[in-house]
Amino acid sequence: MALQNHAISSSSSVFLAPSNLGSSRASNVSIAAKEIGVVRCVMTPYEEKTTYKTKVSRNANIAKLQAGYLFPEIARRKAAHMLKYPDAQVISLGIGDTTEPIPDVITSAMAKRSYALSTLEGYSGYGAEQGEKQLRAAITSTFYRDLGIGEEDIFVSDGAKCDISRLQVVFGSDVTMAVQDPSYPAYVDSSVIMGQTGQFQQDIGKYAKIQYMKCTPENGFFPDLSTVARTDIIFFCSPNNPTGSAATREQLTRLVKFAKDNGSIIVYDSAYAMYMSDDNPQSIFEIPGAREVALETSSFSKYAGFTGVRLGWTVVPKELLFADGSPVAKDFNRIVCTCFNGASNIAQAGALACLSPEGLSAMHEVIGFYKENTKIIVDTFSSLGFKVYGGKNAPYVWVHFPGRSSWDVFSEILGKTHVVTTPGSGFGPAGEGFIRVSAFGHRNNILEACKRFKQLYK
Amino acid sequence: MALQNHAISSSSSVFLAPSNLGSSRASNVSIAAKEIGVVRCVMTPYEEKTTYKTKVSRNANIAKLQAGYLFPEIARRKAAHMLKYPDAQVISLGIGDTTEPIPDVITSAMAKRSYALSTLEGYSGYGAEQGEKQLRAAITSTFYRDLGIGEEDIFVSDGAKCDISRLQVVFGSDVTMAVQDPSYPAYVDSSVIMGQTGQFQQDIGKYAKIQYMKCTPENGFFPDLSTVARTDIIFFCSPNNPTGSAATREQLTRLVKFAKDNGSIIVYDSAYAMYMSDDNPQSIFEIPGAREVALETSSFSKYAGFTGVRLGWTVVPKELLFADGSPVAKDFNRIVCTCFNGASNIAQAGALACLSPEGLSAMHEVIGFYKENTKIIVDTFSSLGFKVYGGKNAPYVWVHFPGRSSWDVFSEILGKTHVVTTPGSGFGPAGEGFIRVSAFGHRNNILEACKRFKQLYK
Repeated sequence: MALQNHAISSSSSVFLAPSNLGSSRASNVSIAAKEIGVVRCVMTPYEEKTTYKTKVSRNANIAKLQAGYLFPEIARRKAAHMLKYPDAQVISLGIGDTTEPIPDVITSAMAKRSYALSTLEGYSGYGAEQGEKQLRAAITSTFYRDLGIGEEDIFVSDGAKCDISRLQVVFGSDVTMAVQDPSYPAYVDSSVIMGQTGQFQQDIGKYAKIQYMKCTPENGFFPDLSTVARTDIIFFCSPNNPTGSAATREQLTRLVKFAKDNGSIIVYDSAYAMYMSDDNPQSIFEIPGAREVALETSSFSKYAGFTGVRLGWTVVPKELLFADGSPVAKDFNRIVCTCFNGASNIAQAGALACLSPEGLSAMHEVIGFYKENTKIIVDTFSSLGFKVYGGKNAPYVWVHFPGRSSWDVFSEILGKTHVVTTPGSGFGPAGEGFIRVSAFGHRNNILEACKRFKQLYK
Repeated sequence: MALQNHAISSSSSVFLAPSNLGSSRASNVSIAAKEIGVVRCVMTPYEEKTTYKTKVSRNANIAKLQAGYLFPEIARRKAAHMLKYPDAQVISLGIGDTTEPIPDVITSAMAKRSYALSTLEGYSGYGAEQGEKQLRAAITSTFYRDLGIGEEDIFVSDGAKCDISRLQVVFGSDVTMAVQDPSYPAYVDSSVIMGQTGQFQQDIGKYAKIQYMKCTPENGFFPDLSTVARTDIIFFCSPNNPTGSAATREQLTRLVKFAKDNGSIIVYDSAYAMYMSDDNPQSIFEIPGAREVALETSSFSKYAGFTGVRLGWTVVPKELLFADGSPVAKDFNRIVCTCFNGASNIAQAGALACLSPEGLSAMHEVIGFYKENTKIIVDTFSSLGFKVYGGKNAPYVWVHFPGRSSWDVFSEILGKTHVVTTPGSGFGPAGEGFIRVSAFGHRNNILEACKRFKQLYK
């Protein structure tokens, strides 16, 4: 019986997960876990019995993926490191996981809604798949006032990452897409999964058929659109994850024009908008004409610590039409009604409280806290002589390690300082040579991590 | 400019939604709403300006869908009816929307978790995409004890409907599927959306390439497998929505053998298992050999009134392998990690409380209440001389109206008794001539609805 090797590899190194030898009881594979799990690898002797396999072909699109999703990969390495150094005080500045407690005004609203579900007058079953009316109205008036967006254009969800995939289901397999390089991995991975791409090209670290729009210090992290071929869909995130760069009004005006000239649809990810310090647009809809070419997705995850609570939204303007004149919103609504059943009513109550005056004030405080963390990290790496980017308009710091493999730097930092970061190449080939340091953490951990960086790189 | 007619039609009648004439301000289309919305239809005069359209082709698979998803369609008709009869006391026995408050033990746990999120020690950010360990363990020991299922096989989600679509993304567009006819519309619709089907064939009410496994009184609502061609995927729901029928151990043994002989994968929907009165299997994994051919999805929606809270799970055994020997669980995990970010932590806390001894006892009480409702509805229609099916092992009553169009009967019942039901043909062509009456409602509403049925059909 041939050994089944289900390798989980990163784009520049191979990390072998324990192989599943097919026997149902003999091996225990910890497939993906954020918590520290014991990975037991029990080898069974060759057995005469043939393992039964169905006749269902594996999805060739999923087979194209080169590795596990980036962040469980980071989690695996962190877990392995912690097994090796059980006494180490590991600090996580890898995945952008919020750490500060949610303000009382928000959690009280969620507790109140929970209790209400036990009463006759307060119980609610299925909610509108698009979300509760009051919340949609509050999102509109808070984020899209005077931008020609109505509450009927708002689709409440369980998060931007989930919406990205639902949007991909709307678009289907026959569209072409462009992403910033580097970018949040969910855009590329969901594109591969939906069959929009060709195979991964190892030598250049790119999937065929995706337009990778390079964003580097040289171009101020805004792509040279004159070098970008037309695609149907353009993913654009600003303030940017992972580079922390924010596009200016002028740049976004050019982007909207580019989309209009090409008949493309921009999927604009504004999940970090409230981290903006500079006077840049916080919504794509601030750009005239954007409603005809763009939709926008956002989230409470990084504003209100809702990474576990799960609440986001997507705005699809009525003016956004497919080539045949049918509204994109109609198809998005169909997907939302068929593939989803609405965000949790309790999370929605929390989101509504987020948008109360007290809630907004509390969110600004938490965001301010993380921004102070960001500044500490920026100052640390700057003082060490590194070229440092981002950090001003987003909770991410993009540190340049010219000429070095980012997975190697990731391993070096983890191994020598017990700090988890994210290797830039995990976000795309133009991320090579960079490390993303996220600024979510208790202040003492941020300070301690920075102390360790100073020791390592002095 | 040609009028854009975005008709939303059911499979046997045409229901015209107000058309969107493309002008951003002039028309207000209520695309889908469970709440009562005012549908404003403002016709703009022909304008000289050409409406801008992107060059992105609409997804041809979504264009294959014949109508909106079934339940928003029902909601639309209910809303139109309520506009017409503003004083009518409309009773909803259409979509299976739970009505009874959630037991205190469960909501207290959710409130407690909400408050904990405001504390340093209680705050949690991103959870494991597969779900919190304690909950996965509780699901395993509650529902899958001694069935060879481990907690690592459990994937916690925001509901079975959402899992169905994620499973379809795992399977991709190149698989064939079989469904019971009639069946829960999400199976067929998600299949169409993923590109697994051909066009809808109006004359027979079926999508090409789907194997519709007829379930009727004549075959005891279990398909004649000798007439079913091989497909990769077989969707099977028991206790069944909409017929209320439950498959016996003998029948499921034959189904598992059929799947094994054909190398197929069974997607087993057990969301109503706790409504079982007869001694039928409550999990497909009670059948020997099932772990090699099946995965199972379920939900707290109809057990704990979690239709709005959102918590379900899917079990993917390690033994379930694609033709190339790769585990289905590995790809499902990849989709869960890439297209999803875990169920809400508060909902998970509620689910854990559901599985405490007190929670289980409380759920049994609520389920018992809905089962009593079901009996009242069964008795009502039986006493009126109708052939009545289901109702014993599920909260749905399947009433036969031989020779009549089910949408006509739906309209007749709504028009004359102000009770919303669901037309059987909405679940598939073999549902024609049947009406599904769901048993979720306050007792007084159930009694009142039955009184009205007696008046109409005496």
